Amino acid sequence: MPGGDTILLTGATGFVGRHVLARLLDRGLPVVATASPGRAPERQDGVDWRPVDLTDPKAASGLMAEVRPARWLHLAWIATPGKFWSAPENLHWLSAGAAMAAAFYAAGGRYALGVGTCAEYGGDRAACREGETPVEADTVYGRAKVAMGAGLLAAAQAHGGRAGWARVFFPYGPGEPAGRLIPSVIQAVLKGEVVETTHGRQVRDFIYVADVAEALVRLLDAEAEGPVNVGSGVDTSLRQVIETITDIAGGADLVRFGARAAPAHEPPALVASVDRLRAATGWQPQTGLRDGLERCIADWKTRLDPPSAAATP
Amino acid sequence: MPGGDTILLTGATGFVGRHVLARLLDRGLPVVATASPGRAPERQDGVDWRPVDLTDPKAASGLMAEVRPARWLHLAWIATPGKFWSAPENLHWLSAGAAMAAAFYAAGGRYALGVGTCAEYGGDRAACREGETPVEADTVYGRAKVAMGAGLLAAAQAHGGRAGWARVFFPYGPGEPAGRLIPSVIQAVLKGEVVETTHGRQVRDFIYVADVAEALVRLLDAEAEGPVNVGSGVDTSLRQVIETITDIAGGADLVRFGARAAPAHEPPALVASVDRLRAATGWQPQTGLRDGLERCIADWKTRLDPPSAAATP
Repeated sequence: MPGGDTILLTGATGFVGRHVLARLLDRGLPVVATASPGRAPERQDGVDWRPVDLTDPKAASGLMAEVRPARWLHLAWIATPGKFWSAPENLHWLSAGAAMAAAFYAAGGRYALGVGTCAEYGGDRAACREGETPVEADTVYGRAKVAMGAGLLAAAQAHGGRAGWARVFFPYGPGEPAGRLIPSVIQAVLKGEVVETTHGRQVRDFIYVADVAEALVRLLDAEAEGPVNVGSGVDTSLRQVIETITDIAGGADLVRFGARAAPAHEPPALVASVDRLRAATGWQPQTGLRDGLERCIADWKTRLDPPSAAATP
Repeated sequence: MPGGDTILLTGATGFVGRHVLARLLDRGLPVVATASPGRAPERQDGVDWRPVDLTDPKAASGLMAEVRPARWLHLAWIATPGKFWSAPENLHWLSAGAAMAAAFYAAGGRYALGVGTCAEYGGDRAACREGETPVEADTVYGRAKVAMGAGLLAAAQAHGGRAGWARVFFPYGPGEPAGRLIPSVIQAVLKGEVVETTHGRQVRDFIYVADVAEALVRLLDAEAEGPVNVGSGVDTSLRQVIETITDIAGGADLVRFGARAAPAHEPPALVASVDRLRAATGWQPQTGLRDGLERCIADWKTRLDPPSAAATP
């Protein structure tokens, strides 16, 4: 039954959302979770699934009035690889998200944690610090997330509620959409295919997906306010990532660094300061790059070469 | 007939909107103007009035699909004195505004100019520069406007359109809502009532309402992109404003500086750099403080002491 201590998890079927949901259930918390109509999974103990189109402001705010959650973790957003950076749909998520934020607090909601992105930062991004590094997004996705973050904090303030805004850096791990960098390199080397990459000197902050999920749940526990980076705090070049993959899985000879031009305007570095995350939660991400990549590679091996049915007794 | 070169003016009945509408009509431009249902004025040559609730995302985006304007000047927002700073309604304007922005470009719109506020700026605000002075609003209104600005620029970028964002400083002039500083001081001294004020050392950028309107129309003409301050560029203390009023209208002995505590967190200075406005339009605000206040005082004299009916032949 909704109300009481209910946590609403919007975007529970995504790459990060699935891990967050598992952690909330581990804690025995009452969870209402949303999925796009037709995408809600089978029944699951402890989860009250609601199919809802969260790009429709009326449906989105209607959900809040019905569920009346005490806390809300908002992960739902357009995430289609190759499309989300510039899609007009970002505006629908913003419009409905602002309506949802107002409706959450109007229905008695206490604390909301929204999910933003490192793409909100501009300027020198070698160690992004919340409240210091300028916020000046130059992509549709980044700008829409800046807008959603400001709107969520405005809604909290208008109603005397609380809100946090988690700026997630570069999550990776088993289940990452196949078109992105790490999955595509792993697939290629496992299949013995050539990998054409850029120079690989771009420095990024990769964070293992289970660590992202744990950080979000801990921020929710702490009811942390304002922007908080969710990253590993470790700077890693793309070259290091790719070389770690081939070190584990082989195929170093398949990689052609510099075969592709790096996109113009790509920042040379994009790394989180995790001081605020640590201060807010007393915790910091645990999984090192090599460990994380080993799990990704093991997962892809299973997917590309499933145990044959004949071997099963 | 909408379409073609039509300009959509949302918020045409407000303090600034009325002046903007008059200027657009002076230029002979085809204007569709909105007003809240029940507040549209009598018929007016050259204006196609549409009553519409622009806090309803569906109605707001429906209007765009119907009017299909080439350009859009978006002034509509909650502006109720004493209420707009912290009202939850700011979120409804944001939600519907984001939907409207997406619908404007989807319907073939070319250029939109949205209206923001100096309350978007944080840090040292003695000479706010677009792209330099940090954007870090700490009020509901300021945050919602930050969000609307980012959302509008995101919508333009997603559709390959253009957008500007005018950050308006402190407009004043005849027709200013009665509860605000300048109208209340003028009324008091004209009525011979005591005026209790703060210390008056706060420095602000006051801009005459007709100059605001002219700036907005010139930005629209120029199809200026990104954030642009709309202020006078002149720093004036509240004490100077009040002393100029009593210099013109008398009543210096009625003013008690320091009788009220200044609000906590009020920035000591909030003044625009107008370099970008000048660069974008080749123009800058024209009306000095004394001239502008003389017109306000003349207007209040007429309102408080209308010419008696008996004097009319």
